Amino acid sequence: MKLLRDKVISDGIVLNNQVLKVDSFLNHQMDPVLMQEMGKEFARLFAEQGVTRVLTIESSGIAPAIMTALELGVPLIFARKQKSLTLREDIFTEKVYSFTKQETNEVTVSKKFIHATDRVLIIDDFLANGEAAFGLARIVEQAGASVAGIGIVIEKAFQPGGKNLIEAGYRLKSLVRIAGLEDGQVQFVEEDEA
Amino acid sequence: MKLLRDKVISDGIVLNNQVLKVDSFLNHQMDPVLMQEMGKEFARLFAEQGVTRVLTIESSGIAPAIMTALELGVPLIFARKQKSLTLREDIFTEKVYSFTKQETNEVTVSKKFIHATDRVLIIDDFLANGEAAFGLARIVEQAGASVAGIGIVIEKAFQPGGKNLIEAGYRLKSLVRIAGLEDGQVQFVEEDEA
Repeated sequence: MKLLRDKVISDGIVLNNQVLKVDSFLNHQMDPVLMQEMGKEFARLFAEQGVTRVLTIESSGIAPAIMTALELGVPLIFARKQKSLTLREDIFTEKVYSFTKQETNEVTVSKKFIHATDRVLIIDDFLANGEAAFGLARIVEQAGASVAGIGIVIEKAFQPGGKNLIEAGYRLKSLVRIAGLEDGQVQFVEEDEA
Repeated sequence: MKLLRDKVISDGIVLNNQVLKVDSFLNHQMDPVLMQEMGKEFARLFAEQGVTRVLTIESSGIAPAIMTALELGVPLIFARKQKSLTLREDIFTEKVYSFTKQETNEVTVSKKFIHATDRVLIIDDFLANGEAAFGLARIVEQAGASVAGIGIVIEKAFQPGGKNLIEAGYRLKSLVRIAGLEDGQVQFVEEDEA
Protein backbone atom coordinates (compact mmCIF):
# COMPACT_ATOMS: atom_id res chain seq x y z
CA MET A 1 0.00 0.00 0.00
CA LYS A 2 1.81 3.07 -1.30
CA LEU A 3 0.37 5.65 1.14
CA LEU A 4 1.48 3.55 4.11
CA ARG A 5 4.90 2.77 2.64
CA ASP A 6 5.50 6.49 2.07
CA LYS A 7 4.50 7.17 5.68
CA VAL A 8 6.89 4.48 6.96
CA ILE A 9 9.68 6.09 4.93
CA SER A 10 8.92 9.66 6.02
CA ASP A 11 7.89 9.15 9.65
CA GLY A 12 9.08 5.69 10.79
CA ILE A 13 12.16 5.60 13.02
CA VAL A 14 14.53 2.64 12.84
CA LEU A 15 15.68 2.13 16.43
CA ASN A 16 17.84 -0.91 15.65
CA ASN A 17 17.90 -3.97 13.33
CA GLN A 18 14.76 -5.34 14.98
CA VAL A 19 12.62 -2.35 15.93
CA LEU A 20 10.76 0.13 13.73
CA LYS A 21 9.08 2.89 15.71
CA VAL A 22 5.81 4.13 14.18
CA ASP A 23 4.31 5.90 17.17
CA SER A 24 3.77 9.15 15.24
CA PHE A 25 1.09 7.65 12.94
CA LEU A 26 0.13 4.12 13.99
CA ASN A 27 0.42 3.09 17.62
CA HIS A 28 0.35 6.18 19.83
CA GLN A 29 -0.51 9.14 17.63
CA MET A 30 -2.73 8.05 14.73
CA ASP A 31 -3.40 9.60 11.37
CA PRO A 32 -7.18 9.08 10.88
CA VAL A 33 -7.11 9.48 7.09
CA LEU A 34 -4.41 6.81 6.87
CA MET A 35 -6.55 4.57 9.11
CA GLN A 36 -9.53 5.06 6.83
CA GLU A 37 -7.47 4.24 3.73
CA MET A 38 -6.14 1.10 5.43
CA GLY A 39 -9.71 0.09 6.25
CA LYS A 40 -10.69 0.49 2.61
CA GLU A 41 -7.67 -1.53 1.48
CA PHE A 42 -8.35 -4.40 3.90
CA ALA A 43 -12.01 -4.40 2.83
CA ARG A 44 -10.90 -4.62 -0.82
CA LEU A 45 -8.36 -7.39 -0.14
CA PHE A 46 -10.91 -9.57 1.68
CA ALA A 47 -14.02 -8.54 -0.27
CA GLU A 48 -14.62 -12.07 -1.61
CA GLN A 49 -14.25 -13.85 1.74
CA GLY A 50 -17.77 -13.47 3.13
CA VAL A 51 -16.54 -11.75 6.29
CA THR A 52 -19.19 -11.52 9.05
CA ARG A 53 -17.03 -10.19 11.92
CA VAL A 54 -13.72 -8.36 12.30
CA LEU A 55 -11.57 -9.34 15.31
CA THR A 56 -8.57 -7.46 16.68
CA ILE A 57 -6.68 -7.12 19.94
CA GLU A 58 -6.35 -4.02 22.10
CA SER A 59 -5.02 -1.39 21.63
CA SER A 60 -3.22 -0.47 18.40
CA GLY A 61 -5.31 -2.80 16.24
CA ILE A 62 -8.59 -1.06 17.08
CA ALA A 63 -8.35 1.97 14.76
CA PRO A 64 -7.50 0.12 11.52
CA ALA A 65 -9.96 -2.62 12.49
CA ILE A 66 -12.93 -0.28 13.11
CA MET A 67 -12.32 1.34 9.71
CA THR A 68 -12.22 -2.12 8.09
CA ALA A 69 -15.43 -3.15 9.85
CA LEU A 70 -17.10 0.08 8.72
CA GLU A 71 -16.14 -0.57 5.10
CA LEU A 72 -17.27 -4.21 5.24
CA GLY A 73 -20.49 -3.35 7.11
CA VAL A 74 -19.88 -5.87 9.92
CA PRO A 75 -19.27 -5.59 13.70
CA LEU A 76 -15.81 -5.34 15.25
CA ILE A 77 -14.79 -7.30 18.33
CA PHE A 78 -11.63 -6.38 20.17
CA ALA A 79 -10.03 -9.04 22.33
CA ARG A 80 -8.93 -7.97 25.81
CA LYS A 81 -5.43 -8.60 27.10
CA GLN A 82 -4.79 -9.25 30.77
CA LYS A 83 -2.01 -10.60 32.92
CA SER A 84 -4.00 -13.15 34.87
CA LEU A 85 -7.50 -14.43 34.68
CA THR A 86 -10.12 -16.09 36.79
CA LEU A 87 -11.47 -18.99 34.75
CA ARG A 88 -14.91 -18.16 33.40
CA GLU A 89 -17.30 -20.20 31.31
CA ASP A 90 -18.61 -17.30 29.24
CA ILE A 91 -15.33 -16.35 27.56
CA PHE A 92 -12.88 -17.83 25.10
CA THR A 93 -9.33 -17.43 26.28
CA GLU A 94 -5.86 -18.11 24.83
CA LYS A 95 -2.38 -17.43 26.13
CA VAL A 96 -0.31 -15.14 23.91
CA TYR A 97 3.39 -14.56 24.46
CA SER A 98 4.85 -11.16 23.52
CA PHE A 99 8.52 -11.31 22.50
CA THR A 100 8.67 -7.50 22.63
CA LYS A 101 7.43 -7.24 26.19
CA GLN A 102 8.65 -10.70 27.22
CA GLU A 103 5.43 -11.52 28.95
CA THR A 104 2.46 -13.84 28.50
CA ASN A 105 -1.03 -12.38 28.43
CA GLU A 106 -4.42 -14.01 28.55
CA VAL A 107 -6.40 -12.87 25.52
CA THR A 108 -10.16 -13.05 25.96
CA VAL A 109 -13.32 -12.74 23.86
CA SER A 110 -16.87 -13.13 25.14
CA LYS A 111 -18.58 -16.24 23.76
CA LYS A 112 -21.60 -14.07 22.96
CA PHE A 113 -19.87 -12.43 20.02
CA ILE A 114 -18.38 -15.21 17.87
CA HIS A 115 -20.64 -18.00 16.61
CA ALA A 116 -19.98 -21.18 14.63
CA THR A 117 -21.46 -19.63 11.49
CA ASP A 118 -19.09 -16.64 11.54
CA ARG A 119 -16.32 -15.94 9.04
CA VAL A 120 -13.88 -13.80 10.99
CA LEU A 121 -11.31 -11.40 9.57
CA ILE A 122 -8.41 -10.87 12.00
CA ILE A 123 -6.72 -7.44 11.85
CA ASP A 124 -3.58 -6.38 13.73
CA ASP A 125 -1.03 -3.59 13.48
CA PHE A 126 2.20 -5.62 13.52
CA LEU A 127 3.22 -9.14 12.57
CA ALA A 128 6.58 -10.42 13.80
CA ASN A 129 6.52 -13.88 15.38
CA GLY A 130 2.80 -14.31 14.84
CA GLU A 131 1.92 -15.05 18.45
CA ALA A 132 -1.01 -12.62 18.59
CA ALA A 133 -2.42 -13.65 15.19
CA PHE A 134 -2.22 -17.37 16.05
CA GLY A 135 -3.85 -16.66 19.43
CA LEU A 136 -6.76 -14.82 17.81
CA ALA A 137 -7.11 -17.59 15.19
CA ARG A 138 -7.31 -20.21 17.96
CA ILE A 139 -10.09 -18.18 19.61
CA VAL A 140 -12.04 -18.14 16.31
CA GLU A 141 -11.54 -21.89 16.02
CA GLN A 142 -12.60 -22.48 19.64
CA ALA A 143 -15.90 -20.88 18.62
CA GLY A 144 -16.21 -23.33 15.73
CA ALA A 145 -16.08 -20.36 13.35
CA SER A 146 -13.69 -19.97 10.42
CA VAL A 147 -10.86 -17.52 9.85
CA ALA A 148 -11.73 -15.60 6.67
CA GLY A 149 -8.27 -14.06 6.60
CA ILE A 150 -5.59 -12.19 8.51
CA GLY A 151 -4.86 -8.56 7.64
CA ILE A 152 -1.69 -6.94 9.00
CA VAL A 153 -0.65 -3.30 8.75
CA ILE A 154 3.13 -3.84 8.94
CA GLU A 155 4.73 -7.28 8.57
CA LYS A 156 8.32 -7.73 9.62
CA ALA A 157 8.98 -10.31 6.92
CA PHE A 158 12.44 -11.07 8.35
CA GLN A 159 10.73 -12.69 11.34
CA PRO A 160 8.90 -16.02 11.05
CA GLY A 161 5.25 -15.06 11.74
CA GLY A 162 4.13 -14.54 8.14
CA LYS A 163 5.70 -17.74 6.85
CA ASN A 164 4.22 -19.74 9.74
CA LEU A 165 0.70 -18.34 9.25
CA ILE A 166 0.77 -19.14 5.52
CA GLU A 167 2.10 -22.66 6.17
CA ALA A 168 -0.75 -23.13 8.65
CA GLY A 169 -3.15 -22.38 5.80
CA TYR A 170 -4.25 -18.86 6.65
CA ARG A 171 -5.00 -16.23 3.99
CA LEU A 172 -2.53 -13.49 5.01
CA LYS A 173 -2.40 -9.99 3.53
CA SER A 174 0.01 -7.36 4.83
CA LEU A 175 -0.23 -3.73 3.74
CA VAL A 176 3.55 -3.35 3.85
CA ARG A 177 6.22 -6.03 4.26
CA ILE A 178 9.59 -5.11 5.65
CA ALA A 179 12.58 -7.18 4.50
CA GLY A 180 15.03 -5.69 6.98
CA LEU A 181 16.09 -2.73 9.07
CA GLU A 182 19.85 -2.79 8.48
CA ASP A 183 21.97 0.39 8.69
CA GLY A 184 19.09 2.46 10.03
CA GLN A 185 17.15 2.05 6.77
CA VAL A 186 13.83 0.35 6.06
CA GLN A 187 14.12 -2.24 3.27
CA PHE A 188 10.78 -3.32 1.81
CA VAL A 189 9.99 -6.72 0.29
CA GLU A 190 10.31 -6.25 -3.51
CA GLU A 191 6.87 -7.55 -4.49
CA ASP A 192 5.22 -4.65 -2.68
CA GLU A 193 6.96 -2.01 -4.75
CA ALA A 194 4.64 -2.16 -7.73
CA MET B 1 -28.03 11.52 20.58
CA LYS B 2 -31.08 9.51 19.59
CA LEU B 3 -29.31 6.65 17.75
CA LEU B 4 -27.15 5.96 20.81
CA ARG B 5 -30.03 6.28 23.26
CA ASP B 6 -32.04 3.77 21.22
CA LYS B 7 -29.07 1.39 21.26
CA VAL B 8 -28.70 1.73 25.03
CA ILE B 9 -32.40 0.91 25.40
CA SER B 10 -32.35 -2.06 23.00
CA ASP B 11 -28.93 -3.59 23.75
CA GLY B 12 -27.70 -2.22 27.09
CA ILE B 13 -27.95 -4.55 30.08
CA VAL B 14 -28.53 -3.12 33.55
CA LEU B 15 -26.48 -5.35 35.87
CA ASN B 16 -27.33 -3.42 39.03
CA ASN B 17 -28.03 0.16 40.21
CA GLN B 18 -24.47 1.19 39.33
CA VAL B 19 -23.48 -0.82 36.24
CA LEU B 20 -24.75 -0.62 32.68
CA LYS B 21 -23.22 -3.25 30.41
CA VAL B 22 -22.74 -2.09 26.80
CA ASP B 23 -20.26 -4.70 25.60
CA SER B 24 -22.40 -5.64 22.60
CA PHE B 25 -21.94 -2.27 20.86
CA LEU B 26 -19.41 -0.08 22.67
CA ASN B 27 -16.63 -1.65 24.68
CA HIS B 28 -16.03 -5.19 23.45
CA GLN B 29 -18.07 -5.68 20.31
CA MET B 30 -18.45 -2.39 18.44
CA ASP B 31 -20.96 -1.18 15.91
CA PRO B 32 -18.86 0.74 13.36
CA VAL B 33 -21.76 2.76 11.93
CA LEU B 34 -22.67 3.90 15.45
CA MET B 35 -18.99 4.83 16.02
CA GLN B 36 -19.00 6.88 12.82
CA GLU B 37 -22.20 8.68 13.81
CA MET B 38 -20.73 9.43 17.24
CA GLY B 39 -17.64 10.85 15.56
CA LYS B 40 -19.81 13.13 13.44
CA GLU B 41 -21.77 14.26 16.49
CA PHE B 42 -18.64 15.05 18.55
CA ALA B 43 -17.19 16.93 15.56
CA ARG B 44 -20.42 18.94 15.32
CA LEU B 45 -20.56 19.67 19.07
CA PHE B 46 -16.96 20.96 19.16
CA ALA B 47 -16.82 22.48 15.64
CA GLU B 48 -16.24 26.00 16.97
CA GLN B 49 -13.46 25.11 19.40
CA GLY B 50 -10.44 25.17 17.07
CA VAL B 51 -9.51 21.57 17.93
CA THR B 52 -5.98 20.60 16.77
CA ARG B 53 -5.68 17.17 18.45
CA VAL B 54 -8.03 14.51 19.83
CA LEU B 55 -6.85 12.65 22.95
CA THR B 56 -8.32 9.45 24.39
CA ILE B 57 -7.23 6.57 26.60
CA GLU B 58 -6.89 2.93 25.63
CA SER B 59 -8.92 0.90 24.79
CA SER B 60 -12.66 1.61 24.50
CA GLY B 61 -12.17 5.30 23.72
CA ILE B 62 -10.14 4.65 20.58
CA ALA B 63 -12.96 3.83 18.15
CA PRO B 64 -15.21 6.86 18.84
CA ALA B 65 -12.10 9.05 19.07
CA ILE B 66 -10.62 7.99 15.71
CA MET B 67 -13.97 8.71 14.04
CA THR B 68 -14.05 12.14 15.71
CA ALA B 69 -10.47 12.87 14.60
CA LEU B 70 -11.36 11.82 11.06
CA GLU B 71 -14.33 14.19 10.98
CA LEU B 72 -12.33 17.07 12.44
CA GLY B 73 -9.30 16.39 10.20
CA VAL B 74 -6.81 16.26 13.09
CA PRO B 75 -4.56 13.53 14.58
CA LEU B 76 -5.64 11.24 17.42
CA ILE B 77 -3.39 10.40 20.35
CA PHE B 78 -4.30 7.57 22.66
CA ALA B 79 -2.82 7.59 26.14
CA ARG B 80 -1.36 4.33 27.38
CA LYS B 81 -2.33 2.81 30.71
CA GLN B 82 0.12 0.81 32.76
CA LYS B 83 0.45 -0.48 36.30
CA SER B 84 3.92 0.79 37.06
CA LEU B 85 6.35 2.97 35.25
CA THR B 86 10.03 3.75 35.08
CA LEU B 87 10.33 7.53 35.24
CA ARG B 88 11.17 8.93 31.82
CA GLU B 89 11.80 12.47 30.69
CA ASP B 90 10.14 12.12 27.29
CA ILE B 91 6.61 11.36 28.51
CA PHE B 92 3.84 13.13 30.38
CA THR B 93 2.40 10.92 33.07
CA GLU B 94 -0.53 11.14 35.49
CA LYS B 95 -1.95 8.69 38.01
CA VAL B 96 -5.57 7.71 37.37
CA TYR B 97 -7.63 5.72 39.86
CA SER B 98 -10.32 3.39 38.51
CA PHE B 99 -13.22 2.89 40.92
CA THR B 100 -14.52 0.04 38.73
CA LYS B 101 -11.28 -1.92 38.83
CA GLN B 102 -10.14 -0.48 42.18
CA GLU B 103 -6.63 0.11 40.92
CA THR B 104 -4.39 3.04 40.06
CA ASN B 105 -2.79 3.21 36.62
CA GLU B 106 -0.10 5.44 35.24
CA VAL B 107 -1.45 7.14 32.14
CA THR B 108 1.22 8.27 29.68
CA VAL B 109 1.52 10.40 26.55
CA SER B 110 4.73 11.08 24.65
CA LYS B 111 5.83 14.73 24.88
CA LYS B 112 6.35 14.67 21.11
CA PHE B 113 2.64 14.73 20.40
CA ILE B 114 1.12 17.55 22.49
CA HIS B 115 2.50 21.06 22.17
CA ALA B 116 1.75 24.33 23.96
CA THR B 117 -0.13 25.65 20.92
CA ASP B 118 -2.54 22.69 20.81
CA ARG B 119 -6.25 22.80 21.55
CA VAL B 120 -7.05 19.26 22.63
CA LEU B 121 -10.43 17.55 22.54
CA ILE B 122 -10.63 14.72 25.09
CA ILE B 123 -12.92 11.80 24.16
CA ASP B 124 -13.83 8.83 26.35
CA ASP B 125 -16.49 6.14 26.39
CA PHE B 126 -17.76 6.50 29.98
CA LEU B 127 -17.88 9.24 32.58
CA ALA B 128 -18.61 8.28 36.17
CA ASN B 129 -16.29 9.79 38.78
CA GLY B 130 -14.27 11.67 36.18
CA GLU B 131 -10.89 10.27 37.16
CA ALA B 132 -9.81 9.44 33.61
CA ALA B 133 -11.05 12.73 32.14
CA PHE B 134 -9.32 14.79 34.85
CA GLY B 135 -6.12 12.76 34.32
CA LEU B 136 -6.14 13.41 30.57
CA ALA B 137 -6.89 17.11 31.18
CA ARG B 138 -3.90 17.35 33.55
CA ILE B 139 -1.70 15.83 30.83
CA VAL B 140 -2.90 18.47 28.35
CA GLU B 141 -2.16 21.16 30.92
CA GLN B 142 1.30 19.70 31.68
CA ALA B 143 2.03 20.29 28.00
CA GLY B 144 0.96 23.92 28.35
CA ALA B 145 -1.83 23.22 25.84
CA SER B 146 -5.51 23.96 26.36
CA VAL B 147 -8.48 21.61 26.72
CA ALA B 148 -10.88 22.47 23.89
CA GLY B 149 -13.54 20.25 25.38
CA ILE B 150 -14.42 16.85 26.81
CA GLY B 151 -16.70 14.54 24.80
CA ILE B 152 -18.20 11.52 26.54
CA VAL B 153 -20.22 8.72 24.97
CA ILE B 154 -22.22 7.72 28.09
CA GLU B 155 -22.31 9.87 31.23
CA LYS B 156 -23.58 8.34 34.43
CA ALA B 157 -25.06 11.63 35.63
CA PHE B 158 -25.88 10.12 39.03
CA GLN B 159 -22.14 10.02 39.75
CA PRO B 160 -20.14 13.20 40.40
CA GLY B 161 -17.73 13.30 37.40
CA GLY B 162 -19.82 15.50 35.12
CA LYS B 163 -20.65 18.07 37.80
CA ASN B 164 -17.00 18.21 38.89
CA LEU B 165 -15.68 18.70 35.34
CA ILE B 166 -18.13 21.54 34.67
CA GLU B 167 -17.30 23.19 38.02
CA ALA B 168 -13.61 22.97 37.06
CA GLY B 169 -14.47 25.00 33.94
CA TYR B 170 -14.35 22.33 31.25
CA ARG B 171 -16.70 22.34 28.25
CA LEU B 172 -18.37 18.93 28.68
CA LYS B 173 -20.68 17.30 26.13
CA SER B 174 -22.09 13.81 26.67
CA LEU B 175 -23.95 11.96 23.93
CA VAL B 176 -26.29 10.35 26.44
CA ARG B 177 -26.73 11.13 30.12
CA ILE B 178 -28.10 8.49 32.43
CA ALA B 179 -30.04 9.67 35.48
CA GLY B 180 -30.27 6.27 37.14
CA LEU B 181 -30.39 2.51 36.75
CA GLU B 182 -33.08 1.66 39.29
CA ASP B 183 -35.28 -1.46 38.95
CA GLY B 184 -33.25 -2.79 36.03
CA GLN B 185 -34.29 0.17 33.85
CA VAL B 186 -32.20 2.92 32.27
CA GLN B 187 -33.53 6.39 33.18
CA PHE B 188 -32.19 9.17 30.96
CA VAL B 189 -31.67 12.79 31.98
CA GLU B 190 -34.75 14.68 30.71
CA GLU B 191 -32.95 17.39 28.71
CA ASP B 192 -31.60 14.76 26.30
CA GLU B 193 -35.02 13.56 25.24
CA ALA B 194 -35.71 16.27 22.69
